[in-house]
Amino acid sequence: MFSTQTYADRRERLKAQFKSGLLLFLGNDESPMNYADNAYPFRQDSTFLYFFGVDHPGYSAVIDLDHGRTVIFGDDLTIDDIVWTGVLPTVAELAAQVGVTETAPAGSLAVYLQKAKDREIRYLAPYRPEHRLKLLRFLGLSLDEQDAKASVDFTRAVIEMRVIKEAQEVAEIEKAVDVTVDMHLAAMRMARAGARESVIAAKITEVAMAPGGNLGYPAIATVHGETLHNHGHENTLQNGQMFLVDAGAETAMHYTGDLTSTCPVSGTFTPRQREIYQIVLKAHLTAIAHLKPGVPFKQIHLLACRTIAEGLKALGLMKGNLDAAVEEGAHAMFFPCGLGHMMGLDVHDMENLGEVWVGYEGQSKSTLFGLKSLRLARPLKPGFVLTVEPGIYFIPELIDRWKAEGKFLDYIDYERLETYRDFGGIRIEENVLITETGCRILGKKRPLTIEEVEAVCKGL
Amino acid sequence: MFSTQTYADRRERLKAQFKSGLLLFLGNDESPMNYADNAYPFRQDSTFLYFFGVDHPGYSAVIDLDHGRTVIFGDDLTIDDIVWTGVLPTVAELAAQVGVTETAPAGSLAVYLQKAKDREIRYLAPYRPEHRLKLLRFLGLSLDEQDAKASVDFTRAVIEMRVIKEAQEVAEIEKAVDVTVDMHLAAMRMARAGARESVIAAKITEVAMAPGGNLGYPAIATVHGETLHNHGHENTLQNGQMFLVDAGAETAMHYTGDLTSTCPVSGTFTPRQREIYQIVLKAHLTAIAHLKPGVPFKQIHLLACRTIAEGLKALGLMKGNLDAAVEEGAHAMFFPCGLGHMMGLDVHDMENLGEVWVGYEGQSKSTLFGLKSLRLARPLKPGFVLTVEPGIYFIPELIDRWKAEGKFLDYIDYERLETYRDFGGIRIEENVLITETGCRILGKKRPLTIEEVEAVCKGL
Repeated sequence: MFSTQTYADRRERLKAQFKSGLLLFLGNDESPMNYADNAYPFRQDSTFLYFFGVDHPGYSAVIDLDHGRTVIFGDDLTIDDIVWTGVLPTVAELAAQVGVTETAPAGSLAVYLQKAKDREIRYLAPYRPEHRLKLLRFLGLSLDEQDAKASVDFTRAVIEMRVIKEAQEVAEIEKAVDVTVDMHLAAMRMARAGARESVIAAKITEVAMAPGGNLGYPAIATVHGETLHNHGHENTLQNGQMFLVDAGAETAMHYTGDLTSTCPVSGTFTPRQREIYQIVLKAHLTAIAHLKPGVPFKQIHLLACRTIAEGLKALGLMKGNLDAAVEEGAHAMFFPCGLGHMMGLDVHDMENLGEVWVGYEGQSKSTLFGLKSLRLARPLKPGFVLTVEPGIYFIPELIDRWKAEGKFLDYIDYERLETYRDFGGIRIEENVLITETGCRILGKKRPLTIEEVEAVCKGL
Repeated sequence: MFSTQTYADRRERLKAQFKSGLLLFLGNDESPMNYADNAYPFRQDSTFLYFFGVDHPGYSAVIDLDHGRTVIFGDDLTIDDIVWTGVLPTVAELAAQVGVTETAPAGSLAVYLQKAKDREIRYLAPYRPEHRLKLLRFLGLSLDEQDAKASVDFTRAVIEMRVIKEAQEVAEIEKAVDVTVDMHLAAMRMARAGARESVIAAKITEVAMAPGGNLGYPAIATVHGETLHNHGHENTLQNGQMFLVDAGAETAMHYTGDLTSTCPVSGTFTPRQREIYQIVLKAHLTAIAHLKPGVPFKQIHLLACRTIAEGLKALGLMKGNLDAAVEEGAHAMFFPCGLGHMMGLDVHDMENLGEVWVGYEGQSKSTLFGLKSLRLARPLKPGFVLTVEPGIYFIPELIDRWKAEGKFLDYIDYERLETYRDFGGIRIEENVLITETGCRILGKKRPLTIEEVEAVCKGL
């Protein structure tokens, strides 16, 4: 937990942006797995953590601007609870740690909101089913109107604060990235022929959990890196394959790292793997070299697309006018996703608050295949923390689909592409902080070049 | 997945118990962590798995008795999905694997149920918030009436089938127990002074995940075993402490193991730890020796309570008439929970369907502290799989509370008890199958006696 003053200051800055009404913060509840009392590891709502710091289920809070009150709602334990869970701080003690002096039982939130029903009650869009139940119960909002009535002002105010990371937040993210590097090093050392993906995924999880954290998101550890979010771990590694890991640690404070590494199962890249890897690496380094305040991230994304297209043209996989190819989205055959996204308390930071605000400041998003998956487009500012993660993927289903449709025949050599259809995918990802003059890569050094990757794979 | 016939047979047996109306099965959705697309590892509803086998989110099913139809509702992937998740079997393919020939898009379930609104639609009690949203949307049931209107007949029919484990289910549970034994052996070998609980909990998780499974429930790995469900892992082990692990593997088929072991951090039990451990072990072995068809588990529980009370009397911690002490619940100072519970697809099997039916066959449950936490009381039958897990706990808050209240002064020597207040807790747990003549302990041999535990701790 950060200092009491940190949370008090954040709330003051938020309050200063509103004149009247209430700001409602719904914390998260336990998420049941197969029955109510068998819950997944608790994950607090990130905005609740940011402003109120309380990392326990069943909490809510209200900032009442009309009456100058800030109230945390939660329930203390009974002796029956204590037998099962041990002693925990009281609601009042937890509130005091974040500078809130007024607390009330969880059940009284409904009463508080009922009394305020003629005033403006601002809330953030729900993303968990329990939030929907609460908005229905507490505010009488039907399921169909809950999204539309979420407060845009409140949402944007939260985003514009959280998007600029404090130095103490950056330090916490770097802790997460450091653990994440260890997860990847462990995975690369295990990625030998005969190893099972599930065994490596288990090790990755262990490394994330050992310091008291967890995974920030489900780990990808697969020989089928061409599937962007492949969470299956049922394969056994074979020589000739590439092994892709996309996994990140979340610290006990819930800041996260997000790295991707790709290595050859045999320990040595084949000539063809080297060629593709070098293109991805060049796109990665080119993107990072151009990151600085004021530059729209969309421009960096397109620069990476262009770099990838150039590399693929040199290999005979793409052809023709590359400016036109990238503009029309032909490169998305190989790079169908975005170059990166914000990162912080969430691995896709604040995705629940809406990409249109977090990544686009309300500007409309392209509907073009590929570009529509770009989560971040807006001009960069000092204090942004984001990922850079170009990749080249050979997706058999997409190849078949586009080939059958005769799509982009001017830009894609489908005959040559067929010889790559079992290649898999390569992605390289690092986490960066935008500084006053450019950017800084976060966390300790991780293997990036072919030589560095091979050295780790070979246990050098 | 079991054979197609397995699922077809189970449904036939269920259908045979109803004459008309619909049976509605709500599968589980993804559970969001901090935003909609960052989900916990998917866990399908166990009853859905039992009758329909489909282990993917977003599915539902209906058995329509009036029209002789069985329909699985789910959505096939689009090409956009495939880019992110890879190719998956179609809904029709998944349905065929479990012997269902009729499928429909997920969205059409609402229409199906709307058309059936004048017939009886039976459903099971909701335990996840998304179930509540669906019952509201699909059946127009308010949040307040959903529990009361769940079908008792349907619930009981499901319970009485699932409660008797098929041989193939027992084999799957034994696989889970075998992995669980490995988790405990790994933990006991690491439980040395200076080790951090989080590091051991991470290793336990790794061992569970490596074969492609997961934890069946949040792992307990603590020097504060007196807290029954202690999920914090923030301590560092010290000599003189006991280290308690309660953790179980869930296989890829979602059957689970559930073992508890307690070992001395120093590798050698102190005389006092030996004494308490021996009492718990005697209660454990006595209980197991008495398990057989026809005996109510409540009787076995009380036998274990009595054994514990006798042992504590010999140590001077309890005193007086032990028959009366156990009847009045004085032993619950040391053993405030139940001796065991059903186990299968859920670690507390079918807890979501209601303990009153699963464990009590509708008989009322005691409200006495201690006995009210007994999850299983009914007469045993061949095919039941359950845990046996006696323990002795020294809970400082409970000692203070009862002492201040002057409770059970005839049965508890509070003066002597004070000298144990920092002792912690010891629990021993194994998993058993009720057979025709008695019971069989499931899974491979795990260290149980003091000599066996010390040998593992010392790396012998």
